[in-house]
Amino acid sequence: MKTELLVKFGERIKVLRKDKNWSQEELADETGFHRTYIGMIERGERNPSLININVFAEVFKISISELLKFD
Amino acid sequence: MKTELLVKFGERIKVLRKDKNWSQEELADETGFHRTYIGMIERGERNPSLININVFAEVFKISISELLKFD
Repeated sequence: MKTELLVKFGERIKVLRKDKNWSQEELADETGFHRTYIGMIERGERNPSLININVFAEVFKISISELLKFD
Repeated sequence: MKTELLVKFGERIKVLRKDKNWSQEELADETGFHRTYIGMIERGERNPSLININVFAEVFKISISELLKFD
């Protein structure tokens, strides 16, 4: 399951993470997700749920709508 | 799994569906989802994936970002 949408989402997460100067490990700590999940998300290999998308939005301190402003 | 976020998402879907004058059955036909899934989504009883959120955005002809503009 690797679609263009998931790849775009992963790229968005990676950009936001790098803006914070966080490693994948640090983003894992912030979100509570496993670091392998973070890696898979950034490569577009996972299809995140709305609740998990919201966790990313919260740690980046933006709205879900802002987080998904790439489509 | 019924969180405020999922309830808000469900309410948003219901409003958009009613704007189109569609029944849950018609939204099921448009999206390809089962009508019981539509009912559960509208009641905030399901945690939709990004790919499924995108299907709703596509049938309502709005961006994902616009669809999730409620948080």
